[in-house]
Amino acid sequence: MGYKDQLRTSRRVLMGPGPSDVHPRVLQAMAMPLVGHLDPEFVTIMDEIKEMVQLTFQTKNNLTFVVSAPGSAGMETCLVNLLEPGDEAIICVHGVFGGRMADIAGRCGATVTTVEAPWGEAINPQQVKDALKGKKPKLVAIVHAETSTGVLQPLEEISQIVKESGALFVVDAVTSYCGTPLKVDEWGIDAIYSGTQKCLSAPPGLSPVSFSERAVKALDNRKTKVQSWFLDLSMVKNYWAGAKRTYHHTAPVSAMYALREAYRIVLEEGLEKRYARHIANHQLLKRELEALGFEFVVKEGFRLPMLNAVKLPEGVDDAAVRARLLNEYNIEVGGGLGQFAGKIWRVGLMGESSQPNYVHALAAALKEILK
Amino acid sequence: MGYKDQLRTSRRVLMGPGPSDVHPRVLQAMAMPLVGHLDPEFVTIMDEIKEMVQLTFQTKNNLTFVVSAPGSAGMETCLVNLLEPGDEAIICVHGVFGGRMADIAGRCGATVTTVEAPWGEAINPQQVKDALKGKKPKLVAIVHAETSTGVLQPLEEISQIVKESGALFVVDAVTSYCGTPLKVDEWGIDAIYSGTQKCLSAPPGLSPVSFSERAVKALDNRKTKVQSWFLDLSMVKNYWAGAKRTYHHTAPVSAMYALREAYRIVLEEGLEKRYARHIANHQLLKRELEALGFEFVVKEGFRLPMLNAVKLPEGVDDAAVRARLLNEYNIEVGGGLGQFAGKIWRVGLMGESSQPNYVHALAAALKEILK
Repeated sequence: MGYKDQLRTSRRVLMGPGPSDVHPRVLQAMAMPLVGHLDPEFVTIMDEIKEMVQLTFQTKNNLTFVVSAPGSAGMETCLVNLLEPGDEAIICVHGVFGGRMADIAGRCGATVTTVEAPWGEAINPQQVKDALKGKKPKLVAIVHAETSTGVLQPLEEISQIVKESGALFVVDAVTSYCGTPLKVDEWGIDAIYSGTQKCLSAPPGLSPVSFSERAVKALDNRKTKVQSWFLDLSMVKNYWAGAKRTYHHTAPVSAMYALREAYRIVLEEGLEKRYARHIANHQLLKRELEALGFEFVVKEGFRLPMLNAVKLPEGVDDAAVRARLLNEYNIEVGGGLGQFAGKIWRVGLMGESSQPNYVHALAAALKEILK
Repeated sequence: MGYKDQLRTSRRVLMGPGPSDVHPRVLQAMAMPLVGHLDPEFVTIMDEIKEMVQLTFQTKNNLTFVVSAPGSAGMETCLVNLLEPGDEAIICVHGVFGGRMADIAGRCGATVTTVEAPWGEAINPQQVKDALKGKKPKLVAIVHAETSTGVLQPLEEISQIVKESGALFVVDAVTSYCGTPLKVDEWGIDAIYSGTQKCLSAPPGLSPVSFSERAVKALDNRKTKVQSWFLDLSMVKNYWAGAKRTYHHTAPVSAMYALREAYRIVLEEGLEKRYARHIANHQLLKRELEALGFEFVVKEGFRLPMLNAVKLPEGVDDAAVRARLLNEYNIEVGGGLGQFAGKIWRVGLMGESSQPNYVHALAAALKEILK
């Protein structure tokens, strides 16, 4: 193939760490001709999307919108807006994405203290309590669903501890959002970001975010300019929520059409039913993979239903088997990241990809390959 | 309408400052089911896109790729990677977007000197020469097509002057790219960014960029970390051009499908033919609008063919007439920005929107409204 040829792609079964499968309705919505990004019709679409972001984050936060770039830019949006040079930040690190937050916080000029747990384990609330002793950090940040390790991090107790310290509580919900319970207001989360290509099953490229009143107050009290122009909420918020929509950048119109449809599908199913579906398919996958000799990295009770981190059975060649799954069966599963590279797989059952047929297809293919 | 209803939009004729019309082939490519962002098939697509970015920028630069966010993020990519705290930057400002570059350069900690021309005029090369006297700036930046004023800025003489000073030459080509001649290598441009929603006629949301060997050397010689993690080229380049593609962020797969198809259409037409088409339709629009009493903001010889900035005839109510064009004729034209708000229109004839039928439709509608 070369660029002169028409686009031809294989029909993959997406069971990696994202993107997940996208519903044909979403693809169809995305293919609608564009209206202008300041068109009153598009402003209505932005309002509708904002409402659906609020419903799915379970928040009434007014400063709730979608960053026009992928989840990592959502992460950066939260940190560059809330941190100023000299601020203290406590970042919980139990995988790649906690490490990424610590890296970004450092680039903001913050003094970063990390709270660490071994890969594959959750952070213990006591660790956060200890780290806060004698400290008055601006924020404490943690990853809800560590995509690199498969850990579901309990948040409520840690949120309580953070609140008592007066710090803002920042949460990465890229992989958990729309796949497992997440209650922004009830759990006292002050800033949260996610991605579109995981359990929401829209194409990658956007990042839903939300900020509490306390976080907005912190933004308003900044003494310095936000170091990123593109992500500076003092301007972005007037584009998304100002009485008169002020041009900031050109919103990705087609991606927003897709996102709107993906949200509609989530809300038609209902959050509770969607969470239950993710658990049911996780259980099915667990039975199938364990029967084949795979072992879960994370202990029961802390496993992500949408991202199953499993150790390979002895003698199974990571790259070779994943290549056969892809080339012979069109099935994509994810490899390990960082210290887990080559040692584990990350099997995604996210959004549209969380379905029994996919589990059955993977299990049957593995039986043939590993026989 | 509410979010529970299916997406319904009007069929607009997009003649504003972008997005422009998107070809049905591009919409169709975008609606193809997704493959994973690290799938070998997607890596091939990235390679093909890179090749087409090089062809359209007329460059052999190896560090040529597409930022996973809109043009403003492309602007920020160039500046945050090339500037470090304490660096000197000369920024030419003759409209909103030059001003935005100066703002971002300041956020990078650079000492910014602006070279200014009145809105509607180009920067005179002598001004740049004067500004460089006794200075050793890291870079000089300028907007090729100032979307807020309709000015086409000649670049070659200024590039020569900048080169002689030893500074890097940074160019904003958001609106000019694929609509008017732009020769990155021949003109000695060291860093350039554009957008997808103008003369390239892909949906908004991505930013093609390119960096010369000299710029890459400057990146390699940085003493400090790039303040943005998301835009840090030392990592992004391994995702786009590394021997082993290293995961950085999840690329917007569907938007890249669309971009690939948009590039194919540009190259099928051919750059020279495309430039000529933009001029021909600009001439047609000029005749029609001048007959109706509109006057061009910019003097002949410096006018953008794809973005026509015109003063309204006396007594014409900006908002009211644009609202009638939109509501009764489905035609979008752009209003003025900044000091031009309420005073001028910006009529876009970009990419797919640069066609005689659109000019005729607008002229006929205006005749009815203004009669």
